[in-house]
Amino acid sequence: MDKILRINMGASGGPSQNIEEAGEFSALGGRATTSMIVAKEVPPDCHPLGAENKLVIAPGMLSGTTGAMSGRISVGCKSPLTGGIKESNAGGQPAQVMARLGYAAIIIEGKPASDDLYKIHIDKDKVTISVDNSLKLMDNYPLVEKLRKEYGDKAAYMSIGSAGERKMAAASIACTDPELRPSRHCGRGGVGAVMGAKQVKAIIFDDSGCTHRQPKNQEKFKAANRAYVEGIRKHAVSGEGLPAYGTNILTNVLNEAGGYPTRNFKTGFFEGGTKISGETQAELEIQRGGLATHGCHRGCVIQCSGIYNDKDGKFLTKQPEYETVWSHGGHCGIDDLDTIAMLDYLDDNIGVDTIEMGVAIGVAMDGGVIEFGDSEGAIRLVRDEVGKGTPLGRILGNGAEMTGKAFGVDRVPVVKGQALPAYDPRTVQGIGVTYATSTMGADHTAGYAVATNILKVGGDVDPLKPEGQVELSRNLQIATTAIDSTGMCLFIAFPILDQPETFDALLDMLGAFYGIKMTGDDVVALGKKVLTLEREFNQKAGFGAEDDRLPRFFKTEPLAPHNITFTVKDEELDELYNWS
Amino acid sequence: MDKILRINMGASGGPSQNIEEAGEFSALGGRATTSMIVAKEVPPDCHPLGAENKLVIAPGMLSGTTGAMSGRISVGCKSPLTGGIKESNAGGQPAQVMARLGYAAIIIEGKPASDDLYKIHIDKDKVTISVDNSLKLMDNYPLVEKLRKEYGDKAAYMSIGSAGERKMAAASIACTDPELRPSRHCGRGGVGAVMGAKQVKAIIFDDSGCTHRQPKNQEKFKAANRAYVEGIRKHAVSGEGLPAYGTNILTNVLNEAGGYPTRNFKTGFFEGGTKISGETQAELEIQRGGLATHGCHRGCVIQCSGIYNDKDGKFLTKQPEYETVWSHGGHCGIDDLDTIAMLDYLDDNIGVDTIEMGVAIGVAMDGGVIEFGDSEGAIRLVRDEVGKGTPLGRILGNGAEMTGKAFGVDRVPVVKGQALPAYDPRTVQGIGVTYATSTMGADHTAGYAVATNILKVGGDVDPLKPEGQVELSRNLQIATTAIDSTGMCLFIAFPILDQPETFDALLDMLGAFYGIKMTGDDVVALGKKVLTLEREFNQKAGFGAEDDRLPRFFKTEPLAPHNITFTVKDEELDELYNWS
Repeated sequence: MDKILRINMGASGGPSQNIEEAGEFSALGGRATTSMIVAKEVPPDCHPLGAENKLVIAPGMLSGTTGAMSGRISVGCKSPLTGGIKESNAGGQPAQVMARLGYAAIIIEGKPASDDLYKIHIDKDKVTISVDNSLKLMDNYPLVEKLRKEYGDKAAYMSIGSAGERKMAAASIACTDPELRPSRHCGRGGVGAVMGAKQVKAIIFDDSGCTHRQPKNQEKFKAANRAYVEGIRKHAVSGEGLPAYGTNILTNVLNEAGGYPTRNFKTGFFEGGTKISGETQAELEIQRGGLATHGCHRGCVIQCSGIYNDKDGKFLTKQPEYETVWSHGGHCGIDDLDTIAMLDYLDDNIGVDTIEMGVAIGVAMDGGVIEFGDSEGAIRLVRDEVGKGTPLGRILGNGAEMTGKAFGVDRVPVVKGQALPAYDPRTVQGIGVTYATSTMGADHTAGYAVATNILKVGGDVDPLKPEGQVELSRNLQIATTAIDSTGMCLFIAFPILDQPETFDALLDMLGAFYGIKMTGDDVVALGKKVLTLEREFNQKAGFGAEDDRLPRFFKTEPLAPHNITFTVKDEELDELYNWS
Repeated sequence: MDKILRINMGASGGPSQNIEEAGEFSALGGRATTSMIVAKEVPPDCHPLGAENKLVIAPGMLSGTTGAMSGRISVGCKSPLTGGIKESNAGGQPAQVMARLGYAAIIIEGKPASDDLYKIHIDKDKVTISVDNSLKLMDNYPLVEKLRKEYGDKAAYMSIGSAGERKMAAASIACTDPELRPSRHCGRGGVGAVMGAKQVKAIIFDDSGCTHRQPKNQEKFKAANRAYVEGIRKHAVSGEGLPAYGTNILTNVLNEAGGYPTRNFKTGFFEGGTKISGETQAELEIQRGGLATHGCHRGCVIQCSGIYNDKDGKFLTKQPEYETVWSHGGHCGIDDLDTIAMLDYLDDNIGVDTIEMGVAIGVAMDGGVIEFGDSEGAIRLVRDEVGKGTPLGRILGNGAEMTGKAFGVDRVPVVKGQALPAYDPRTVQGIGVTYATSTMGADHTAGYAVATNILKVGGDVDPLKPEGQVELSRNLQIATTAIDSTGMCLFIAFPILDQPETFDALLDMLGAFYGIKMTGDDVVALGKKVLTLEREFNQKAGFGAEDDRLPRFFKTEPLAPHNITFTVKDEELDELYNWS
């Protein structure tokens, strides 16, 4: 990964391309790369949809190697949803293929003067940027189907659906899985709208003729990878729970903990929980000839995904993730898996973040647009409104905050404009700290305190009390920022938090690959460095301490069944970035 | 004005009322009163549409007296549009009547548990809060028509149209003029949405049996008032220009100065300007049997308003103000006065801020919803979309920022979420400073530097250069905050800035009324005190220095015909509140 591809979509005479040396970025990746480039090159006060914003795409430090779990790709920009810096990462094949093509990053900048729509094809010999207005307003599944006829089945595809072209702030960027389903999404923060603003419909990576990236120390790398895989497989979460039931194993867990936000965060328990649990879902998937276990990219040894078939046994969507099942399920009072799977498919196809979309629908339900529990109504909203870009669809497709404003709802679960995910911060106070303070807006993946609060991974911090939550969230946010830079799936956090030898194995992989000595301190230093840059960007973009807060109702309305409010003090939240 | 009426709309068993002693507020008024109460009682991080926000209504210090020009009423709350503190004031009769009823303020707090709609009737004997669901979704003109049958022609009415009930962030509160037209609006910042969230449709003030408020020193007050009126009448702006042509005299002035924002701030000159100028408007009004000169409240000696009849000589709307003519005119590329007048009527009837509404339509035009210059389209958007609360109407009715997001427009002229008014900050740099730094969001009335930049009132500061603009805006913002507390119409600023004896006359009126010695220093101190409170509220609500900025395009895109950008530096803007 020794080169950076810079594409200026606004060049006079049409898009221009330039290959630059990667420099410091050749030994970096993912979030470190995207955030460092965005922080350096994007004016924090620019309009997210304007020519000055840039879309930066980067595979992880170990993407494209034979290292397990290294298939995450990061997309960075100024977010149209939060107004701050954004890194959104996804699985699927693009990270591996892009890394093998040798690109540490692609920077897409400027804005075409015409309204032409472009596709970008990258193989080992050249980069081709071409107008293809026949793709206009196509959604992801038919789009990829059309593109693969032209570019073949060996390529990896990143694309936007109609939502991205319409520049909706919930628009995602789809990445294809090994079977070329556009089902893995850089979902959060509206990165798809920035790609849409650049008028880039799809990027096609073809690594034919390329090999795996080669480590400096082949033997050491192999041995470390072996130990790493072994560690992942022996941990209860990554080796048993996730493969068997996927992330949706959490529905029952959170529901039992009273931390499952139900009907727009009104209670912490959903009476329909078991009907949409991971256990129920896995059984149904197997029964219908789908898969309860499936990897989103080659090299995955956890295989937390699956294939969800419809009643006739035909592919409907990939196994919906826990957060998707929640956002379209309990949050909306919907307890029907087929409805949720259909919404997951629609979201992926249109190209919107399933969390933001589901939360927006729940807020719309609270505003009386449709009733809680209205499955057909929810499908209609996504398919016929968001999918067709009607005014109502543009409201919903711009997320929960905009939906709340449009319908005069005073109960809007967002931080920095981004919808809260599937864990109530009153019952899981550590994740509340992450929601409040993350540079990304409300984001469970930014510092997954649920692990330690609820799953008792990496220690045990009482989820109902404020004590220790800031320290927990801080440590997790720092570690996560580093993990998001390696290209590793975040689920490796479970084994590496609990098993020092597995963490060491990851350090050894990095060290062996780059021919350096990598320590835990280096990981922490990288995490702190990137978080600091992100936070500085956000401050210049207008965020202050008062933006590091949960919506007030979490502090004033007790949540049943624990009848508890969020009690971490503002002053404590303000300490999160005060690390030594 | 020795009492405060506190109404808790959320009291169990239905709305409760309580009369409190006014205390310090008995000798205060307007913006000082509303901002001090909001700053003291409203949690800055509450949701603007939630139970914790409060709607505070206050007449000015001299409202209800025989003093000229004292008919402004202030409404304060946390703004649903900006998220910060808001004071929005209007003319019409309510200030005078409410003041004579003895109320220094009305505080409406809480939120009903039911969805009933309420009206509040206040006379000298009692306050009656009653459910009246027959008023639901009525617009202001038919609403007042219905209410006056019940409450008579001597009352003054404050009301919201359907937009306020729908809690649109551009919703206004209408105040009736002497002829009971609901044509004077507390327009900016969505105060109507807060009234709607409280489920209060109308407040009816009846001062039958009350007299003018009596000054401590009758003779001195009378003499001062005489001198004051004389000063107003002899100044060219307040004595000639405004009475003859109204505020719309500014169309030609700003157009000639190259500071007339045209088609969403793309150029500074509108080729159709003369067709919609104040001169053309006055001629047409007279020709159709309307009025080119009319006062919005009794006691007005400027009479800058008028009556705009339709082609058949029937009342269509009050004379549209300059900012309305601009927002629906040049900003939208519309050069037809009848269209603009119809839009003015529709805005007043539905109850939305004419500035926010017009700017939102222009942004929608930029987003391709309709074409620039499409008169019928603009009318359709307001009448059939905003007026009917369709999803598109809810987008537009929530203002320019939301409209920009919905349609992916990267050129959105707002500060703190509030639309810029009718003066391009590149050509009138002083008003740019006010837009950027006002506690109210972009608001020309907060510190009308146009006076000194363009009209050469109160000195002469070159509008095209950054020098002196911060000091100018600072002084005007301080003075304006004080004037907004007196109940005086802001147009007295023209004579009092130019004529020391007229300023002294105003001080003498205040002094004679309250039996105190009032100096220029007292005025400045009051202004500073209130601005400081407002700014502190905003800081707690999340605003920092980066929010005191114009949208970036004003700094990067030169405006024709002067080919000039906004050049006041950020560091200079940050000095605005650093007064000694």
